Amino acid sequence: MINIRPILRFSGVLLVLLGVFMLSALPVSWWFGGQDFQALLWSALICIGIGLPAWWWLRKDAKGNIGKREGYLIVAGGWLLMSVFGMLPYLLSGEIPEWYNAFFETSSGITTTGASVLTDIEAVTPGILYWRSLTHWIGGMGIIVLTVALMPLLGIGGIELFVAESPGPTSDKLHPRIRETAKRLWLIYVGFTIVLALLLWAGGMTPFDAVNHSFATVATGGFSTKNASMAYYESPFLHYVTIFFMIAAGANFSIHYHLLKRHFSTVFKNEEFRTYLLIIAAATLVIAVSLVWHFDYGVEKAFRDSLFHVVSVITTTGFITADYSQWGPGVVMIIFLLLFVGGCAGSTGGGIKIIRHLVFIKNSWLEFKRILHPRAIVPLKVNGETVAPRIMTHIIIFLLLYLLLTLVGSLALSVMGIDFATAVGATATSLGNVGPAIGDVGPVDNFAWMPPAAKVWLGLLMIMGRLEIFTILVLFTPYFWKSN
Amino acid sequence: MINIRPILRFSGVLLVLLGVFMLSALPVSWWFGGQDFQALLWSALICIGIGLPAWWWLRKDAKGNIGKREGYLIVAGGWLLMSVFGMLPYLLSGEIPEWYNAFFETSSGITTTGASVLTDIEAVTPGILYWRSLTHWIGGMGIIVLTVALMPLLGIGGIELFVAESPGPTSDKLHPRIRETAKRLWLIYVGFTIVLALLLWAGGMTPFDAVNHSFATVATGGFSTKNASMAYYESPFLHYVTIFFMIAAGANFSIHYHLLKRHFSTVFKNEEFRTYLLIIAAATLVIAVSLVWHFDYGVEKAFRDSLFHVVSVITTTGFITADYSQWGPGVVMIIFLLLFVGGCAGSTGGGIKIIRHLVFIKNSWLEFKRILHPRAIVPLKVNGETVAPRIMTHIIIFLLLYLLLTLVGSLALSVMGIDFATAVGATATSLGNVGPAIGDVGPVDNFAWMPPAAKVWLGLLMIMGRLEIFTILVLFTPYFWKSN
Repeated sequence: MINIRPILRFSGVLLVLLGVFMLSALPVSWWFGGQDFQALLWSALICIGIGLPAWWWLRKDAKGNIGKREGYLIVAGGWLLMSVFGMLPYLLSGEIPEWYNAFFETSSGITTTGASVLTDIEAVTPGILYWRSLTHWIGGMGIIVLTVALMPLLGIGGIELFVAESPGPTSDKLHPRIRETAKRLWLIYVGFTIVLALLLWAGGMTPFDAVNHSFATVATGGFSTKNASMAYYESPFLHYVTIFFMIAAGANFSIHYHLLKRHFSTVFKNEEFRTYLLIIAAATLVIAVSLVWHFDYGVEKAFRDSLFHVVSVITTTGFITADYSQWGPGVVMIIFLLLFVGGCAGSTGGGIKIIRHLVFIKNSWLEFKRILHPRAIVPLKVNGETVAPRIMTHIIIFLLLYLLLTLVGSLALSVMGIDFATAVGATATSLGNVGPAIGDVGPVDNFAWMPPAAKVWLGLLMIMGRLEIFTILVLFTPYFWKSN
Repeated sequence: MINIRPILRFSGVLLVLLGVFMLSALPVSWWFGGQDFQALLWSALICIGIGLPAWWWLRKDAKGNIGKREGYLIVAGGWLLMSVFGMLPYLLSGEIPEWYNAFFETSSGITTTGASVLTDIEAVTPGILYWRSLTHWIGGMGIIVLTVALMPLLGIGGIELFVAESPGPTSDKLHPRIRETAKRLWLIYVGFTIVLALLLWAGGMTPFDAVNHSFATVATGGFSTKNASMAYYESPFLHYVTIFFMIAAGANFSIHYHLLKRHFSTVFKNEEFRTYLLIIAAATLVIAVSLVWHFDYGVEKAFRDSLFHVVSVITTTGFITADYSQWGPGVVMIIFLLLFVGGCAGSTGGGIKIIRHLVFIKNSWLEFKRILHPRAIVPLKVNGETVAPRIMTHIIIFLLLYLLLTLVGSLALSVMGIDFATAVGATATSLGNVGPAIGDVGPVDNFAWMPPAAKVWLGLLMIMGRLEIFTILVLFTPYFWKSN
């Protein structure tokens, strides 16, 4: 029997938190004239009004048996809940009146994807824009901290959920006590947000734009307050600062902890982090050379634009400074392939994650050794430690299911009449929580033209991708619902 | 140390055989006026002139140690050799004067792909067309029988090579003696060819066209003697006969043996065969309904055209009766996905093969059970027998490497300036040994317009795909060349 009460109680807690975040948008709304004040206030009241009783009334019954299955339902239900109730400000303000558009925009926000249905972002009222960026920040924090910090409140350790969301073979426990870990990561996350906002402000952004871009960057989201995204700003300083913080947000947050503690050797030994930097460097070099070679690009501008987009896509942020769809089929294909890379495990980045690629590539390489020497025992090692075959298999199955889901997702869009490149690109960017893609959903396009069914489908793909696929798919297996 | 002499000796045998096959084209050439007689004769003499001495002189030295590594080199080298020396008739006759075009056409033939650089097939002389179809037939026989039948001549069992090419977890040994098995499969293959040629002739084809189409069908090749491929023929009888034999050629040939022996329960229990028929039925139904719904198609014609293309793509044959690129994005995507399915293990079909998908899907499903019950032992069963984890892992790694190679292959084409859909489609159809694809290499297009480098690259991808990837890729690992 699945224990439904703690799930409801957790949903209550989540709704209250969502409501409190909505309240934080009220001063912003008031400062800019308050056009969207009522919409935001009512949204907050609805969330808190539903959430608070659930939290309170179920507080005693929530101590029952909470196992793996309840955990999966809490995480999957929680993300869906945020995507649904997060729509309220859009709907009530009338800025996005259709439910499917609002669902797309909200799940895109909460999952830190950053794909948008808005055709004129600068015409949207500031309070709503702030809420839009805030959904990124909430989602990013959710991935990093939520499950670790909130689970203990419900009487469960949360470690299993953390593993459900943490893709790597090594969860690299910073501290045996989960709460302590959560607090540290949360502090790093908040610290990054404040420092980045100040730097962007110092670089010439208005305080409002600086805060919004900071939210979208540290969460690897990608919503901008400008129609042209980061291309609106010509300042190289703003571009480089954003690049630096995108890289930081796409790295394992425990790396930052070790850096702060000056554990440099631990950081340097981390294979995932090294691979991450290596892929960024290699892709940037190739694209930059291509830009200088084929186009009338200066060296610095070519380097900056290449680095910006490589980092933006690999960290699954999705900001843009140029229209990369004009850079020739080779670069478009590289960008497309980077959609499948993803950030590091334990970052706010989405996608497949570097660690999985590392395990797959290393293991494939060893497979050739195994073919030639069938009787030899050839263990797989990452960061100097042997990866159990069980975990290795799990990671490889994840990779294949991810690609299968990309194909199934593309098929669904194609059936709706969307052309090949656009369908594959839109699916890959949604599942990978990136934002821009190729075809008719390229860097300077948006998703407004898509049929409603496509928007809902892509929103669901974003949630599936954000929760590492298994968390959602397992709910559709009979094994999950069997009482034993 | 790799033992080079038996490899050279085997290459000699192969060249002689290739020459003998070329000689078989001489009567055809003579009958149709002999325009290409000299080219074919010289090609044959060159092959035999090089091959015979190698075969003869090395006959004594070839009894040395022949292991796995020599086996891989024999298979990889053999296919490359056939693709290179098979070019001679095209080059010497001047029908395809450029070496890269001739290499593309020959490897496309030998690997039973069926993609072509010819823009006007009907203008090519009959002897050369016959040779073109014959390369399919040689390649198909190669996959089914060559390695099993020829290895004993070289003093090695050949079983390891058979396993290297046989993708399934069960090699379903028909008979302990390899030679006997080879002979049986060879008889079935030849029998199919004769029966199909007679049926096509009876259905209205000229004897010449009937033989050529028969070669291309039983080998799941796809070269036609008509510019319009099978769309040239309006007879439903010819279409259905071709469909039936494509299905037969894409099935495990041991299935046919069991059918001939009336072992119906063995056939019915074969999960791969059942899945194969199920996928064909499902895809046909969906496309046929779509055609009747969206287009002015009669039910029989919709059914026939759908079935024809589903079977043509899934068996990796590549004949066409209509321009499926006009059937809307949904159908194009289905066709694209079918490029990755492939025939059954032990058939002449290429691609990933049904058995691998079966293992992957079954195992992924079980993975959900394993997540929920980490301590339970959940074995994977195919055809009622447990698949060892080792083999399961190998198959999953194959799948991922196949997809990785598709992406790398597409990237290479993109860098040459080829657009996204065309690059991905051309790579997938080459690696899967299918023939037609999507984008600018759709059903009514050809590969003539591609840059030379793309043609050579696609030809190599065909060979990699035909030899189940590992056989080629292993040559590029240090493990292969280490003396121990």
